[in-house]
Amino acid sequence: MLLRNCRYLVTQNAARDILERVDVLIEDNCIKEVGKGLARRFPKEESVDCSERIVMPGLINAHTHLGMSGMRGFSDDKELAAWLAEIIEAEHARDHKQILAEATLGVKECIRLGTTCCCDMYSPGDVAAEAAAKSGMRLVNCPAFFTAHHALSANDIVKHLPVKRYPSIISMALGPHSIYGTDEGFLKATRAFATEHKMIIHIHVAETRKERVECKERTGLLPVEYLDSIGFLGPDVLIAHAVWLTKGELDILAARGVKVVHCPQSNMKLAGGGVMPLAEMHERGIVVALGTDSAASNNSLDMFREMHTAALLHKHHYWDATAAPAQTVLDMATRDGARALGLSDVGSIEPGKLADVILLDTTDINLQPLAKERIVSHLVYSASGLNVSEVIVDGKLLIRDKKFPIR
Amino acid sequence: MLLRNCRYLVTQNAARDILERVDVLIEDNCIKEVGKGLARRFPKEESVDCSERIVMPGLINAHTHLGMSGMRGFSDDKELAAWLAEIIEAEHARDHKQILAEATLGVKECIRLGTTCCCDMYSPGDVAAEAAAKSGMRLVNCPAFFTAHHALSANDIVKHLPVKRYPSIISMALGPHSIYGTDEGFLKATRAFATEHKMIIHIHVAETRKERVECKERTGLLPVEYLDSIGFLGPDVLIAHAVWLTKGELDILAARGVKVVHCPQSNMKLAGGGVMPLAEMHERGIVVALGTDSAASNNSLDMFREMHTAALLHKHHYWDATAAPAQTVLDMATRDGARALGLSDVGSIEPGKLADVILLDTTDINLQPLAKERIVSHLVYSASGLNVSEVIVDGKLLIRDKKFPIR
Repeated sequence: MLLRNCRYLVTQNAARDILERVDVLIEDNCIKEVGKGLARRFPKEESVDCSERIVMPGLINAHTHLGMSGMRGFSDDKELAAWLAEIIEAEHARDHKQILAEATLGVKECIRLGTTCCCDMYSPGDVAAEAAAKSGMRLVNCPAFFTAHHALSANDIVKHLPVKRYPSIISMALGPHSIYGTDEGFLKATRAFATEHKMIIHIHVAETRKERVECKERTGLLPVEYLDSIGFLGPDVLIAHAVWLTKGELDILAARGVKVVHCPQSNMKLAGGGVMPLAEMHERGIVVALGTDSAASNNSLDMFREMHTAALLHKHHYWDATAAPAQTVLDMATRDGARALGLSDVGSIEPGKLADVILLDTTDINLQPLAKERIVSHLVYSASGLNVSEVIVDGKLLIRDKKFPIR
Repeated sequence: MLLRNCRYLVTQNAARDILERVDVLIEDNCIKEVGKGLARRFPKEESVDCSERIVMPGLINAHTHLGMSGMRGFSDDKELAAWLAEIIEAEHARDHKQILAEATLGVKECIRLGTTCCCDMYSPGDVAAEAAAKSGMRLVNCPAFFTAHHALSANDIVKHLPVKRYPSIISMALGPHSIYGTDEGFLKATRAFATEHKMIIHIHVAETRKERVECKERTGLLPVEYLDSIGFLGPDVLIAHAVWLTKGELDILAARGVKVVHCPQSNMKLAGGGVMPLAEMHERGIVVALGTDSAASNNSLDMFREMHTAALLHKHHYWDATAAPAQTVLDMATRDGARALGLSDVGSIEPGKLADVILLDTTDINLQPLAKERIVSHLVYSASGLNVSEVIVDGKLLIRDKKFPIR
């Protein structure tokens, strides 16, 4: 496939080059070549006219619960405890078929709005994998484990992983829900299993003040201190939310190479208080990805909207208009998301990378006026996922002219 | 025109009724009738199939500077002073034709994204009126006055108002820029002129701490106290931003019936600090509208995005997930916007009101799943202006199937 005559190509390579009027050659599932004149050299390739397109890496949503996508708009504007009670009751009332339908809705929404890869934590562990494999979206699938509800041992981990073999776009990881949702024995077993099988671990940490206070009361340590004390942390651990942390805990995260996923819209809507210390994390070299959380607490899986809110929240929080600049936020949703998930082959458009690419329609009125030096700003501050016109994952064209192709 | 078989009709009437499967009859520029079976009674009317549409009042953007729409993405992530210097230099480098082109871009973006009425403050005073009249958008046009740059007297007000007569969708108002941008004599003259000619007054108040401190130093009074001391305030005054206010100032605003327009995204992006005290305003019965401010400080004139950010910002600010619920925010962008602008004929869909109506496409994936009790949530927490499929202003269909019709 040839992406011909790209109006703007936002490479997100190390130099953050933005190229104009270039072609991108995709062979099988890989980006083969980027440059001018490829259309002449490869005239027989199936080609997509990109003369009115911004071409960029697919967005990476590093924290979702896709199986809850049917709960969009089901419960809003409520105190956390009341909200959670309603959501959990509704979750448990569904059968496997319904959960799979909700995961499928979530996957399709992601694809339509320009997300090519999610890191999803949910139980049962097969629904998101099933939905993503069928729709063709890349997925790091983290079956959720709660020992608070069911006593689990190390041996149980395997039982909760999907049995079925999925295509290469689906990778498996481990999702012990949280410190308060599991127990020390299980966390240690998870750590050992992850090391043995080279899987990443995804866990909620420090989303609320309650969680922090409870951990301190029970263990004498703050959440990150506690996880470190049991040898849990490492560069293969991705923690979600990470709002309520001390500088001491940030130092531990940096020393262990732990990755973080920031979910600003979910945090704001649930009113957990505080703001994830983004600047303090970046100062320490911590890799921070971006995620929407579920449609139950955010109501849109649009990563363009998440980028915009992230940029605004940190400017607002620090009373500093230079905080969270557009390029930094775009990195979080692309390159840094890939690093956080241990996926070295996505997150930028460069020869040799996997072909996870999205196109935006430059004729849309909310992206005017066009200029090379404004494109990154437009992506973060002006665009909506509905500006995405084409989506390619692993070399396959999943969206064409803003629609799922009729097959 | 007949809006036939509306899947959901969000009336925004006093009872906030949401009706299902009803028809809306529009005659000339008015809503004539709402109910079932109108299609049978009026078979010859030009009709729009609304079986896959949410039908709702057009959104009201109560604070714009449309003539700056070409500055989208021109300067971001900079300290306020540096940003302002760049913007002002670029503004002054343009000729009348360029400013009109930018205003036209802004008007078209508004219409496409579901805004049917703006309150715009800009100089020269004819560009927004010209652009809105041509495109068919309703406008409260407030030519901006700065006596800081040019000494102006009461007699000069008339000279700065457009000479040309515009259609009824354009109404004129007065835009003394701010306390710091004008002087006391001119503010008093503006007040007298507004009273004589029954025009509303639109002015920036208490956007930044600097403005507040300077006013106190110069006059011995805080901004709202000062405006009240010179007899400026009344129910025909609409103040923009209103972030840095004391409870005493809020009491004055309430006592005088002053209206407020909240611009959360612009405030956050420019990092003015603080949050407009929405809950404290609503407690006092102050009417609060919603506005985007210009594309230079917000980068999107999408009022759906503005509603979403408003709802999230107040939950986040008060650490209270019940703050700024969806219905309250939707009211701000419709009914309360109309009240703020003194336009009693728009802001809801009821017989006798002007036909400013927008339709959203219920087949769009980010609005699923559909249910009557989720619609208001979807409008505030999930929708984008790009979900808008049809736009009607003053009875005229300006957008059809998400496109400007080819004429």
